[in-house]
Amino acid sequence: MLEHGGKLRMAAARYHIPLDEWLDLSTGINPNSWQGATAPLTSWSRLPEDEDGLCEAAGAYYGVTDLLPVAGSQAAIQILPNVYPQSRVAVLTPSYNEHAHAWRRAGHQVDLIGENQLETAVDCHNIVVVVNPNNPTGLCFAPKTLLHWHERLVARGGCLLVDEAFMDATPDHSLAPYAHRKGLIVLRSLGKFFGLAGARVGFVLAEKCLLKKLADVLGPWTISGPSRWFSTQALRDQDWQMVMRQQLKSNATRLSQRLTDYGLSPDGGSALFQFMVTPQAKMIHTYLAQQGILTRLFNDPYPSSLRFGLPGTELEWQRLQQALADLNLSPVREQSA
Amino acid sequence: MLEHGGKLRMAAARYHIPLDEWLDLSTGINPNSWQGATAPLTSWSRLPEDEDGLCEAAGAYYGVTDLLPVAGSQAAIQILPNVYPQSRVAVLTPSYNEHAHAWRRAGHQVDLIGENQLETAVDCHNIVVVVNPNNPTGLCFAPKTLLHWHERLVARGGCLLVDEAFMDATPDHSLAPYAHRKGLIVLRSLGKFFGLAGARVGFVLAEKCLLKKLADVLGPWTISGPSRWFSTQALRDQDWQMVMRQQLKSNATRLSQRLTDYGLSPDGGSALFQFMVTPQAKMIHTYLAQQGILTRLFNDPYPSSLRFGLPGTELEWQRLQQALADLNLSPVREQSA
Repeated sequence: MLEHGGKLRMAAARYHIPLDEWLDLSTGINPNSWQGATAPLTSWSRLPEDEDGLCEAAGAYYGVTDLLPVAGSQAAIQILPNVYPQSRVAVLTPSYNEHAHAWRRAGHQVDLIGENQLETAVDCHNIVVVVNPNNPTGLCFAPKTLLHWHERLVARGGCLLVDEAFMDATPDHSLAPYAHRKGLIVLRSLGKFFGLAGARVGFVLAEKCLLKKLADVLGPWTISGPSRWFSTQALRDQDWQMVMRQQLKSNATRLSQRLTDYGLSPDGGSALFQFMVTPQAKMIHTYLAQQGILTRLFNDPYPSSLRFGLPGTELEWQRLQQALADLNLSPVREQSA
Repeated sequence: MLEHGGKLRMAAARYHIPLDEWLDLSTGINPNSWQGATAPLTSWSRLPEDEDGLCEAAGAYYGVTDLLPVAGSQAAIQILPNVYPQSRVAVLTPSYNEHAHAWRRAGHQVDLIGENQLETAVDCHNIVVVVNPNNPTGLCFAPKTLLHWHERLVARGGCLLVDEAFMDATPDHSLAPYAHRKGLIVLRSLGKFFGLAGARVGFVLAEKCLLKKLADVLGPWTISGPSRWFSTQALRDQDWQMVMRQQLKSNATRLSQRLTDYGLSPDGGSALFQFMVTPQAKMIHTYLAQQGILTRLFNDPYPSSLRFGLPGTELEWQRLQQALADLNLSPVREQSA
């Protein structure tokens, strides 16, 4: 298994700063998560049921009729490679590394493909995996581009897998409306935009026969009752979603601006994170960690780079800004002064 | 996938009785579930972490050091067949039918084995699967018997899988203390005794290398954050556990007694259900359903039989008793009159 999580605990131990004093910007999870209600006690005590309204709420939210609820998109990433015969798989890099790991583990031949190689990769691979918007680079693929790749893949019996974990702030770019097509799979999740990473609820959008196969492999009751209930409420809360889309857009601009102000101009980003390639990544990561601010550091095999998630409260914004000022990188700032 | 759940909804529709007017005795879930506390909001918003105390709480409760938390024992049932080479598998019957289904689905040769054939089955199968206490029959295997079978199996490179979903009321009969031994797997669950079927939390107790393999197949974050938190509290609540063991014992006696009083003498049972084989099973099931009381009916390929779960409140006990009286089976009652 790849190493995940526990990063905050490790950082707390390493930098001798108590857990609750950290500003954790190491994830792309919305810090202002949906918090509408308390799951009823019966959701803990009864076996979860398929007919509880979750699929209807998700169908309305994603604008589809066929979907399979899974215990986070990770559950789908984990088993999708098991339902395909041995294939040549192109996985976008850098990207969320569980994809390549899962296809390799299942014995497929996996090629890590840079952004510029994708156009040719679709003609010589059976399966192409992209994250859109991409994590951590923020790279966005236009639906038209992806649909064109999908057509070429499916003409050769192939499949396009699009992980849309960070798509919720820009639903117009989603391939969800096309996911019922043969050879197209879209993964969605409540972990990022809704900020419900702990709920472990995601969805596979794909043609019916694939969903049936996945459901059979996964078995019954993969999502907890309280998570199903909580997620159903979040998916139905259109007011919150509308406000949050605006709020994230403005917060993303603010984060990008602040980073730029202090000499860390992002190379890409999404509504929920900003990303920059810099040879100073490790130094900056370490300096901020010493101030109790955890960022996500990428290095070998990735280019030396950093990802910043969004601060939640005004106090957290101030704290980040102060730490960036103290960092004193300031080339851009001096230029603009 | 096997058909599960939704049975109450189906019954509600079929018998024209609103969902919330049913007394659901169709499961073996403790109707007085653990309800200690409300999961903190951070458990919804943060990714679950392995180091959150769940494993320590479970280790203390089961008296083991090596275990793997899974999303209900169903998650383990679902994937265990995938980590073994093609085998000849003996599965106790009648029993929880997901076991045989899972091993078959993975391509193993599955023989359904009656209680009396198990003694010989351990010498000609690679893998033997028993549920102890058995669901729905209530049949109990002594640890000594199981350990003897395990020794014979492991001597031939085989494996004994013991599903202890209903073991919590009688922990002295558990094989948990031996589960670290090669070729022995014990499944536990918080669904029945703790009444947390919706939480989807169970544990695999087995030798370390198998747990590692299963963890790799399942991938990270299979259990929701709130479920991990809630279960940790339940596993630590020794006072509740002690009281509940006594309470269930006395309620099981009461249920067995009431059923006997009204001519439905159980053929077996556990702390959480009573079971009887009777050619009248379907008639009784239908009659009770017409009164809004749902029992679990077993028939072909099982013998015609019924399982009754425990009523929760005193009112529910009265309601069951009245319905049994109205059933007017009364052969035993007349004998004792």
